[in-house]
Amino acid sequence: MTSAAQLLSALRAHPEGVAGTDLCQQLGVTRAAVWSHIESLREAGFEIIASPHRGYQLVSAPSALLAVDLQSRHKKGQTIGNTIHVLAQTTSTNDEVSQAALENHPEGLVVFAECQSAGRGRMGRRWSSPTGRGLWFSVLLRPSLAPSECTQLTAASANALVRAIQSVTGITPEIKWPNDLLINGKKVAGILTEMSAELENVRSVILGIGIDVNQTASEFPADLRSIATSLKLATGKSVSRANLAEALLRELDHEYARILAGDFTAVAEEWANHCTTLGKLATIDMGTRRVRGRAEALDENGALLLRTEHGRIERIIGGEVTLTK
Amino acid sequence: MTSAAQLLSALRAHPEGVAGTDLCQQLGVTRAAVWSHIESLREAGFEIIASPHRGYQLVSAPSALLAVDLQSRHKKGQTIGNTIHVLAQTTSTNDEVSQAALENHPEGLVVFAECQSAGRGRMGRRWSSPTGRGLWFSVLLRPSLAPSECTQLTAASANALVRAIQSVTGITPEIKWPNDLLINGKKVAGILTEMSAELENVRSVILGIGIDVNQTASEFPADLRSIATSLKLATGKSVSRANLAEALLRELDHEYARILAGDFTAVAEEWANHCTTLGKLATIDMGTRRVRGRAEALDENGALLLRTEHGRIERIIGGEVTLTK
Repeated sequence: MTSAAQLLSALRAHPEGVAGTDLCQQLGVTRAAVWSHIESLREAGFEIIASPHRGYQLVSAPSALLAVDLQSRHKKGQTIGNTIHVLAQTTSTNDEVSQAALENHPEGLVVFAECQSAGRGRMGRRWSSPTGRGLWFSVLLRPSLAPSECTQLTAASANALVRAIQSVTGITPEIKWPNDLLINGKKVAGILTEMSAELENVRSVILGIGIDVNQTASEFPADLRSIATSLKLATGKSVSRANLAEALLRELDHEYARILAGDFTAVAEEWANHCTTLGKLATIDMGTRRVRGRAEALDENGALLLRTEHGRIERIIGGEVTLTK
Repeated sequence: MTSAAQLLSALRAHPEGVAGTDLCQQLGVTRAAVWSHIESLREAGFEIIASPHRGYQLVSAPSALLAVDLQSRHKKGQTIGNTIHVLAQTTSTNDEVSQAALENHPEGLVVFAECQSAGRGRMGRRWSSPTGRGLWFSVLLRPSLAPSECTQLTAASANALVRAIQSVTGITPEIKWPNDLLINGKKVAGILTEMSAELENVRSVILGIGIDVNQTASEFPADLRSIATSLKLATGKSVSRANLAEALLRELDHEYARILAGDFTAVAEEWANHCTTLGKLATIDMGTRRVRGRAEALDENGALLLRTEHGRIERIIGGEVTLTK
């Protein structure tokens, strides 16, 4: 963590204020350095007051997503978010993290962008990512999993998103298999899981996550207005993206640890409790093939088990789901 | 194909010589252009004689691997090799092609390097790639396959290598599952299959291929001398790398077409005929787990079916194989 992030972390830990001398000790830097970091944080939009009695006090944070802010919220021992970058704009945060993966960056890296010019959803679809309105980010993982086990990570990520959104907004989204989160039947978030592998070994997995946070209805493209929503539209008020990002990285880290510990059963149970797809009749389009049946369960790797009209169980890894009942 | 490659192709098609005017017509360029291309080919090391009676005649080609040479051998309609680059040196040709894949390069791209500073085999192992002694190259594919079906491509590539080596040297190598080619029990070539995928869809597959062609015994690292060989050591004479590369790209294209046509049964049969692993007792190390049993067959996706001591069939995607009998 940089000194500025440490300083921010210390200010947040002491909402009642903290003395400059205490900050010097905690950070192991001079008073001049503390002063200089306070100034740079103020320039970035943090409101910090200084008084002889209370010392320094953090009053408010800017609405922009800042790396120093997110870094200051990172808990020691957490893999996800051990390195955090925030870009003003990029094509797609998955592209950024793919590039880092190629260059052998260790796992845990998280790249956010305020705006993506070519954000993508599954199957090469476009993902609308307007500036400053959502959380668009990607996470680099290097799990010891076989390629076929990586479907577990999509279910685990969906759980993390449910819990993070719940803890910050009080609303519990539903999961639509395999990778969408819905509020009132409208899509509020999506997960794109990409991997790079030798045949038997996964080299890297990139979780691309997009969450519609503070869009108003008119800020959605016209064709999405009837099927998409934002947390602001659902709750009636703006949501702090930094608070949400902090909760997301914490919950993703928690779920990732469960997968690595081999505890997918617990992950799948929690997932099933939040999933609107199970029990419903579903039509699944897989490009060249269409299957129809009742969604019964997740298998041990996170694939959907569908009982077809002929009573046979089909194992589905991915595809376009339409729920009929 | 560039004009220089077309010219070379025309010279090769007329070993008896071809008139300058005919070359102008075939290429649709001026005599001055033909002359200038002839000069640049000569500078690159091609011996081309010109006589009033016979016209231009290609006498010999340089031993260096040249893009213009390989391009001139590309057959119309062949996917693999529709774009060919030859680099003097790189870290690993798989890195080069991974980068191109990220940048949305279409399939068929082949990148050769005269020397790799960080050539790799399976499981992150080093692959010795001394300058000008072998063929070190990678192929970009974008098949409509599920990740689990990509094991088919390793078997298909092994077939292509067997046939190409056979056609150029007369020697038939054996296949050691999953990705090694042996001559007299010593390794002469290897295949590294890497993929990038969404969970359900393969985005790209990179075939990394290394063939030891013209090394003498002393040119192998000391620790490899007893287990590795080259085509030159096996045949007693130098092998034209360009001829071999041409045969390889042709055979790889042929096998790829079979996989895309869904004809893996034929691929697997041919593979089984050349495979030393089948029928033998094998110990397979998969990092965290070791399995021992008799190698019985390939399944429909190219995984090895091993009958264990307890009579159970284990399906093995990859691992380190030691044959015991």
